[in-house]
Amino acid sequence: MTISVAHLGPAGTYAEMAAVAFSKKLSQFGQKSILCPYTSIAQTLWAVSQEQVNLAVVPVENSIEGSVTITLDKLWQLDILEIQTALVLPISHGLISLAKSFEEIKIVYSHPQALAQCQGWLEKFLPQVKQSPANSTTEALEHLEQDYSIAAIASQRAAELYKLPILAYPINDYPDNCTRFWVLKKGCTEMGNSALKLIIDTIDQPGNLVFTSLGFTVPANEPGALVKPLQVFAKRKINMSRIESRPTKLSLGDYLFFIDIEANSNHNYVKAAIEELKTYTQTLKIFGSYILMTIS
Amino acid sequence: MTISVAHLGPAGTYAEMAAVAFSKKLSQFGQKSILCPYTSIAQTLWAVSQEQVNLAVVPVENSIEGSVTITLDKLWQLDILEIQTALVLPISHGLISLAKSFEEIKIVYSHPQALAQCQGWLEKFLPQVKQSPANSTTEALEHLEQDYSIAAIASQRAAELYKLPILAYPINDYPDNCTRFWVLKKGCTEMGNSALKLIIDTIDQPGNLVFTSLGFTVPANEPGALVKPLQVFAKRKINMSRIESRPTKLSLGDYLFFIDIEANSNHNYVKAAIEELKTYTQTLKIFGSYILMTIS
Repeated sequence: MTISVAHLGPAGTYAEMAAVAFSKKLSQFGQKSILCPYTSIAQTLWAVSQEQVNLAVVPVENSIEGSVTITLDKLWQLDILEIQTALVLPISHGLISLAKSFEEIKIVYSHPQALAQCQGWLEKFLPQVKQSPANSTTEALEHLEQDYSIAAIASQRAAELYKLPILAYPINDYPDNCTRFWVLKKGCTEMGNSALKLIIDTIDQPGNLVFTSLGFTVPANEPGALVKPLQVFAKRKINMSRIESRPTKLSLGDYLFFIDIEANSNHNYVKAAIEELKTYTQTLKIFGSYILMTIS
Repeated sequence: MTISVAHLGPAGTYAEMAAVAFSKKLSQFGQKSILCPYTSIAQTLWAVSQEQVNLAVVPVENSIEGSVTITLDKLWQLDILEIQTALVLPISHGLISLAKSFEEIKIVYSHPQALAQCQGWLEKFLPQVKQSPANSTTEALEHLEQDYSIAAIASQRAAELYKLPILAYPINDYPDNCTRFWVLKKGCTEMGNSALKLIIDTIDQPGNLVFTSLGFTVPANEPGALVKPLQVFAKRKINMSRIESRPTKLSLGDYLFFIDIEANSNHNYVKAAIEELKTYTQTLKIFGSYILMTIS
């Protein structure tokens, strides 16, 4: 069986780079896979929830710009996706343009996250240039065509794929720029004794740091309502590596919380913590336990 | 003295609507003000930090799409801004186009937050239409010109200002859509015995709910590091109405936290809480105490 892997396309996006790296990992285990580009993160997640594909690779968090909120919101709403593994990809942006010098450039296009990550560089070297958002870093390249007054911010790989010149590289403001992706599958599906399972099984190897992601709501307007769930982990010395609040979309000031803990939900002390957590939360969802792979 | 108020422009943005409402409030107290549009939220905040203007009105949170992260990041980085008051504005989007019917529309432009807030409506009524991001809802209107195949999502007020037809209204997916704005000034500046001071002084009127906003960092990789700061308020029965994490931008997994508490930092029990908070945090910043005004 060939595993199909959905990602935000077209080819050349950072999501595709993460999917390619994951695909290589699968092939090391003798597992074939094909990549399936989608035009939005929402559609990528919808595809895996509808079993159009086996897996989806989606960005969840960037070290500079923070959460990719559409990923968190859809994970909560679709309610049937399970995190298989996390991937960390270093991000390095280039200024891509047919212009011969910075002076020719009038507009620079990119995904809003990429524009934000290069804000300092743009203010310094292209202060008069209009910044225009695009749906993806690769889509930004479509604006270049034969127009020398336009630039785009995208990866080195995208420039190579589309045979476009890089005018400056790297241009991100912070050197330690990376994005964490999740590989997700539909919760109830089984992919048998595949390479995927072999990768997932590394979760049980000693020394591997395992993360569990959860989402929950707490009673509103109650002092300490959030403290109690967090204490459940603190008193067991379970480190919480991340907390993110998102609006419930019901009314302003009404939130749900996403947390990552450094622990495996299969272990008994974690199961006990989750049982106790249920007493302090209104809705509780467990999105899976997984390891983190760094892509070099 | 006329007070100058910076906001994201051009005229017709929701930020301008909030600034207009605040300006009206000032005039009720006999205070004149002028509005100064800027092309980005970052520039709006920069302007007030440099004393180019007296005040800035910036969005901080939407009930559907969550935090406006650039506002939080700049508040932390600039480190000299003080929250004067909070404004809540109801948000109602319209589909604006010269097209006679939905069938003619090929592309819809808007600010990414506005596109996200109408995602369900767009999928239902304009499923084949390409969605393209713009820097503001008003900027999206520039694409219309004489092209009947283009639509934009913006406010009813923007449509009136630019004399453009509304094809559908309201089109937001959630009826209770509103945005909270902050009115900010440079911390050390005094605007004398102005109407602004009169408004601010309402903070001490009994019955007014007062909020205080703070930002802090905690030691990394320490189980319970976030629980201790939150307990400081919980044990004093101070309700925390919001918590938001943002990357420190130093490395992935390193965060700073923004919280809003329902309490006035001038009161002694709150001062004591803040003193205790200092023992659990690495950096602590107090962004001000203020009341919340709802714009109808």
